[in-house]
Amino acid sequence: MVEPQITVTQSEPTIKASMIVVSNRLPFVLKKDPKTGELSRCASAGGLVTAVAPVVIKGNGLWVGWPGIHSKEPLGEIPESDPSDQTPTAGLRSDQVVCVEANPTEFDSYYNGCCNGTFWPLFHSMPGRAAFSADDWRNYVKVNKLFAMKTIEALEKCHKRNTASQNVPIVWIHDYQLMLAANWVREAAEERNLPCQLAFFLHIPFPPWDIFRLFPWADEILQGILSCDMVGFHIRDYCLNFVDCCQRHLGCRVDRKNLLVEQNGRSVRVRPLPIGIPFDRFVDLARGAKKIFKTQQKIILGVDRLDYTKGLVNRLKAFEVLLEKHPEHREQVSLLQISVPSRTDVSEYQQLKEEMDQLVGRINGRFTTANWSPIRYIFGCVGQQELAAYYRDADVALVTPLRDGMNLVAKEFVACQINQPPGVLIVSPFAGAGEMMHEALLCNPYEIDEAAEVIHRALTMPEDERSLRMNRLRRREMECDVNFWMRSFLKAMGSIEEDDVGVTRMQPVSVDDFDYLLNYIGYNQKLALLLDYDGTLAPIAPHPDLAILPHETKNVIQRLSNHSDVFVAVISGRNVENVKKMVGIEGITYAGNHGLEILHPDGSKFVHPLPMQYEDKVSDLLKALQESVCRDGAWVENKGALLTFHYRDTPNELRQELVEKTKSIIEAFGFNATESQCAIEAKPPVQWNKGRASIYILRTAFGVDWSERIKIIYAGDDATDEDAMLALKGMAATFRVTSSHIVKTSAEHRLPSTDSVLTMLKWVERHVMRRKPRANSLTYRHKKNDGVTMQVSFDMARLALQNSAANSNCNSNHNSGSEDDLV
Amino acid sequence: MVEPQITVTQSEPTIKASMIVVSNRLPFVLKKDPKTGELSRCASAGGLVTAVAPVVIKGNGLWVGWPGIHSKEPLGEIPESDPSDQTPTAGLRSDQVVCVEANPTEFDSYYNGCCNGTFWPLFHSMPGRAAFSADDWRNYVKVNKLFAMKTIEALEKCHKRNTASQNVPIVWIHDYQLMLAANWVREAAEERNLPCQLAFFLHIPFPPWDIFRLFPWADEILQGILSCDMVGFHIRDYCLNFVDCCQRHLGCRVDRKNLLVEQNGRSVRVRPLPIGIPFDRFVDLARGAKKIFKTQQKIILGVDRLDYTKGLVNRLKAFEVLLEKHPEHREQVSLLQISVPSRTDVSEYQQLKEEMDQLVGRINGRFTTANWSPIRYIFGCVGQQELAAYYRDADVALVTPLRDGMNLVAKEFVACQINQPPGVLIVSPFAGAGEMMHEALLCNPYEIDEAAEVIHRALTMPEDERSLRMNRLRRREMECDVNFWMRSFLKAMGSIEEDDVGVTRMQPVSVDDFDYLLNYIGYNQKLALLLDYDGTLAPIAPHPDLAILPHETKNVIQRLSNHSDVFVAVISGRNVENVKKMVGIEGITYAGNHGLEILHPDGSKFVHPLPMQYEDKVSDLLKALQESVCRDGAWVENKGALLTFHYRDTPNELRQELVEKTKSIIEAFGFNATESQCAIEAKPPVQWNKGRASIYILRTAFGVDWSERIKIIYAGDDATDEDAMLALKGMAATFRVTSSHIVKTSAEHRLPSTDSVLTMLKWVERHVMRRKPRANSLTYRHKKNDGVTMQVSFDMARLALQNSAANSNCNSNHNSGSEDDLV
Repeated sequence: MVEPQITVTQSEPTIKASMIVVSNRLPFVLKKDPKTGELSRCASAGGLVTAVAPVVIKGNGLWVGWPGIHSKEPLGEIPESDPSDQTPTAGLRSDQVVCVEANPTEFDSYYNGCCNGTFWPLFHSMPGRAAFSADDWRNYVKVNKLFAMKTIEALEKCHKRNTASQNVPIVWIHDYQLMLAANWVREAAEERNLPCQLAFFLHIPFPPWDIFRLFPWADEILQGILSCDMVGFHIRDYCLNFVDCCQRHLGCRVDRKNLLVEQNGRSVRVRPLPIGIPFDRFVDLARGAKKIFKTQQKIILGVDRLDYTKGLVNRLKAFEVLLEKHPEHREQVSLLQISVPSRTDVSEYQQLKEEMDQLVGRINGRFTTANWSPIRYIFGCVGQQELAAYYRDADVALVTPLRDGMNLVAKEFVACQINQPPGVLIVSPFAGAGEMMHEALLCNPYEIDEAAEVIHRALTMPEDERSLRMNRLRRREMECDVNFWMRSFLKAMGSIEEDDVGVTRMQPVSVDDFDYLLNYIGYNQKLALLLDYDGTLAPIAPHPDLAILPHETKNVIQRLSNHSDVFVAVISGRNVENVKKMVGIEGITYAGNHGLEILHPDGSKFVHPLPMQYEDKVSDLLKALQESVCRDGAWVENKGALLTFHYRDTPNELRQELVEKTKSIIEAFGFNATESQCAIEAKPPVQWNKGRASIYILRTAFGVDWSERIKIIYAGDDATDEDAMLALKGMAATFRVTSSHIVKTSAEHRLPSTDSVLTMLKWVERHVMRRKPRANSLTYRHKKNDGVTMQVSFDMARLALQNSAANSNCNSNHNSGSEDDLV
Repeated sequence: MVEPQITVTQSEPTIKASMIVVSNRLPFVLKKDPKTGELSRCASAGGLVTAVAPVVIKGNGLWVGWPGIHSKEPLGEIPESDPSDQTPTAGLRSDQVVCVEANPTEFDSYYNGCCNGTFWPLFHSMPGRAAFSADDWRNYVKVNKLFAMKTIEALEKCHKRNTASQNVPIVWIHDYQLMLAANWVREAAEERNLPCQLAFFLHIPFPPWDIFRLFPWADEILQGILSCDMVGFHIRDYCLNFVDCCQRHLGCRVDRKNLLVEQNGRSVRVRPLPIGIPFDRFVDLARGAKKIFKTQQKIILGVDRLDYTKGLVNRLKAFEVLLEKHPEHREQVSLLQISVPSRTDVSEYQQLKEEMDQLVGRINGRFTTANWSPIRYIFGCVGQQELAAYYRDADVALVTPLRDGMNLVAKEFVACQINQPPGVLIVSPFAGAGEMMHEALLCNPYEIDEAAEVIHRALTMPEDERSLRMNRLRRREMECDVNFWMRSFLKAMGSIEEDDVGVTRMQPVSVDDFDYLLNYIGYNQKLALLLDYDGTLAPIAPHPDLAILPHETKNVIQRLSNHSDVFVAVISGRNVENVKKMVGIEGITYAGNHGLEILHPDGSKFVHPLPMQYEDKVSDLLKALQESVCRDGAWVENKGALLTFHYRDTPNELRQELVEKTKSIIEAFGFNATESQCAIEAKPPVQWNKGRASIYILRTAFGVDWSERIKIIYAGDDATDEDAMLALKGMAATFRVTSSHIVKTSAEHRLPSTDSVLTMLKWVERHVMRRKPRANSLTYRHKKNDGVTMQVSFDMARLALQNSAANSNCNSNHNSGSEDDLV
């Protein structure tokens, strides 16, 4: 069999924009001379650094990370690299490095607690090993904020340095230690007008929703990641898991085909970007390394960090079964297992080490002969050159993790397989590498007997098959090396011009989307629409009086309110007369002051019996606020039962102090302070809110068994709407219009804008208009052009009757749905 | 607040068809009197039995299961129930019971090993606790087969008894102990002409694919379940997980919207059927039970089997945090935890008990005062009446499992909450009940601090909110009780006429399906089609000569073979001249004898250098077979290099012996015996098969770098095609046509019939015809009627050139894809 000539030309990726890399660790560790106190760099040589560092260096970018040591005093100036340093980071100037220095206790809780004690096992789908600690989570948030602030520093530097450049810098955040940081980077970058493109890459697997949802702060994690413009995972399965979580946990609109998630009106790209290795470097190492084995026996090689995800115990057991069931391999084959010590201060890892020690001893004890020990077990680190020799001269490599994001050992092994005939790679389907390296033998590490058979097959495979498989494996890794990964990343960011980058924007919310979002609404069911006004029906405006209901929205609501099967209520924080004036539609229900006042279509009015003492206090509070905090553009709106403090026009830098002061005044008066869009509501502490009001409205209109008789849609955009979403949870389709950063919501779904609420209303119109017209009922002409436009004429007289009937709290159970319920 | 009158009328489900229930346990346990050796029944009183037993009894059905004891001699006659027995199973006559008696060691391995040691933790998404043992799996298969055989006995009895009935009996298999049984029930029922409808219900969660795929025999489990006509799970999430596994693991075609899976040409319905409880019985029990608490303290109640899925440790810790952070509850509140002993001989459960004992001791030690102990811990069983009193008088129920299929404690609690004002239910989102009981307070048991806050909220909830929530919870459980569940099941089976039962059949395979199945094929890519003949292109026939290629299929292949971007090879077990004659198309590649002979379009021929000694042996083997096993309709086909033994016409009962004898003769001659559709192939043991042949053909036609230059589609229907599917894994789209029972395949996708292969060919035609016609290339008229029909005229001369160029093994890299590569 003739070896095909491999002649792929490789180029280092070039980039026009500057890049800021943010990772838990800097690409080198700082060492402090214990005598002189002098700092020096100790470079690391991972594949990631190899590919990424040149891009940072050439693009005049920066690297943000922890330097590997804690210090009581600030570290000060970062030293330049040693002149003898030949690693890819040598060219990284000290002014391209931003050190994150954290409180050691908090950092330990963040790193060993939350990252390695929670996310590591959880993301590897081993929930039983995950500890969930609120303290660790708080420190994770804190350290992520710290990284974000340092990243903003870096971004400022970057903009100052590269003023001439037309290109927006790329901020690239790495891995599970920093899943929240993007949120504050985006927030601060927007505030300070520091344009950037935000990207995230996860180096470990992303678990399915059933596992991910166990994490109590799953919402925040997803939204933290979604603050980026592009999110990369190793393989498509992880992408799909992530997209699924966004849909099911956050209620985001997603596009599975093009791998897009809509968050706060932005389209976030999700991309499979399988990482590669510096292939050529490993080939060179393998070429240069001396022969290392002085034995005639075949060598099966395992190289792993000593971690419970690596399946080492299963591997040893499979080897034992091999020797038991295929005695012909005794004295002919040895397993060389290199286990690199890891997290040795954690008890779980100590236990694993003990188990391994014991197992190696037992198996060796069972089979060892005068001149042969079946397992050679190295617990320690091995240099790159030596490792390359192992890779080159091994006959079989066993890469059989129980779960692994990618696994680079599999790739390094094939790179070093320069001998003819080559060896055989065995890989687990639960590693990312198993997904890509099709020609390897697949082996489920949980099935010990079968694993033994796969090893046997590898040991006895004919030469030509070994060559065919290894050639294809090597060709792929050579082409898809770590520079290819880097180029793919830049391509996904749209920073280098190459082909197309696929579909990068979600389709705008369309009427058809709601076929899925509202699929719980059956044919011929009555519908109640409960809608917030500001930010939901009408776009937010600088002053409440300017928040006008768009003409088209008004028309749709008008038409819907005339349909016998639709009930409409607008529930607002405004006072009820004001919201009625703003909407301007007769014959629907209005609720003001978050439901403290309700105006029925027949003109009758419900007012919540506000405790007397608070009625007096409202005017006192108004006066206090006007005296103390109505400055710098802030003002108080008097809504009767409650007050709203507006600070939309207050300069950014003054807001925080003003908000805190206002809240303390409100609370000092015994009122509740609730934040909404650039405003703070002062509410008397009554057990009444939009949730209670919604239920009151529904009960009044449809009787106590309302939830059996109608389907409910609720849409709102701020914190006060959450009360209604919580109260209606499981009984309504709820939509939260979100445009800000991390938002925790009880709503089922998120919508990006008031426009999409209008689209939802159009869906409702289409849905009810599809119904068979009833005798003597309204007539309509349904002219379908593009599936959206409809022209409808209706019978206004009908409407008044309908609404007053509903309002009289009659139990219309026997009539509803029959054909003659219209008088 | 006025309590709404609950006046739902409930009816017991009626059924026209007989029902055979198959469950691990019978609805009673047999007890043997140690003195007399006499057997008696000891009835069980679970909700399932309550609902299902009456249906079995009234429909003159049967119940198949293990009686709860092992016995050296066969148990013999089952006793009738005791006249004093008031339970729902009392009416189950002894001739309605089929006892499954298993070997105790095998049963232990099946039950404690595979069911409880593997499936229980795995299906609860706790893979770290799952042991994977090949021995246990073998016993699981064995015991499932035994249950299947007993079920067939029951089905025979049922048909004999109810000869007058027009209705087909329903066989209803229960739970994770019996996931394979349906396979052999279907097989035997078809063979013996015993019509039945097969159903399965899983009482525990179904995990996501990332977890499920860890199980080494995941294929068999899915196919076992898919042998049913209808598969039920508690909630929609489990249904979706299952459908996802069928698509991703088996390569089945699925319909997520209508919850359908296609298996061997059948449409399997997947339905959410959330189980309920006998609501009225619990209300009666609560009404009749005496007051049980003699304390003024509020009671928080927990009732669970002592199992690691129940989250008991987390619960105790949350209660501790409550007492710590809200000291106002000290001496005012007690946690009453009832832990029912379970699997006490398993070390994991013993460890959990020790942990609980220690934790209870520590927390009580920390907070106990003179007159108050915070935790009352009952380790033992509690009677139904007493339990109802606990449920009725508790203020809060804590149902906080880490994972739970449904959890009936939550439902029993609300049923018994007849006091006014009622208590509060707290439920975990990871229980099926958490998905349905929206008005309960949700609590993630992993977040201890938050869980403590939820308990606090429950303890301080205003009366009116408690009433509103409890009323709605009770109404749902009353309506959706266990009889409702039973009716829903029958409705899903289509056995009782009620409304519609939804969409129950998959759309036939359509051309559009392949947009998804073949989405890896990009625009303008060259395609190679490698197709098996019998059972793939042509339907299987009683004799090979009758397996005619359908006219339409022939035409499509003819047209495809003329397209410049399509390469076609037919690879068959027939000899090459014969397959060419059957297909009858010039200018394509034919491979015969599983690839030992290959006929190129230019007439040149490759013949694998068969070892000389086997050439002689073929005729010896032929003679031996003709002498010994060519009887009862069996015959041998002489294909030159190999032989095929056909037994399609042999009566069923004679087949097994004949097959075994034939195999042993073949192997005695040193040949390999491979089973295919009612035939056994005798092949010389050469390292050559359809896989090697496929790669040879591709390399010959497209050069060594074929896999970079063309996309490959392989379709086949039997075991010999698996070699090709394995060899091409990851490099081709592979389709296995399946029509039999459990089939393990390396193919990516399954297709139900030769018709669907034709549809796939039509997709290919549509795909390539969409391309821009090339200059000087073939001309065609594309007349799109229904997206399928096309009329094409082509240039025959072109074809010969094309194929001979490809065949000359030239490296046509520089030409391929350019517009002038045609001369």
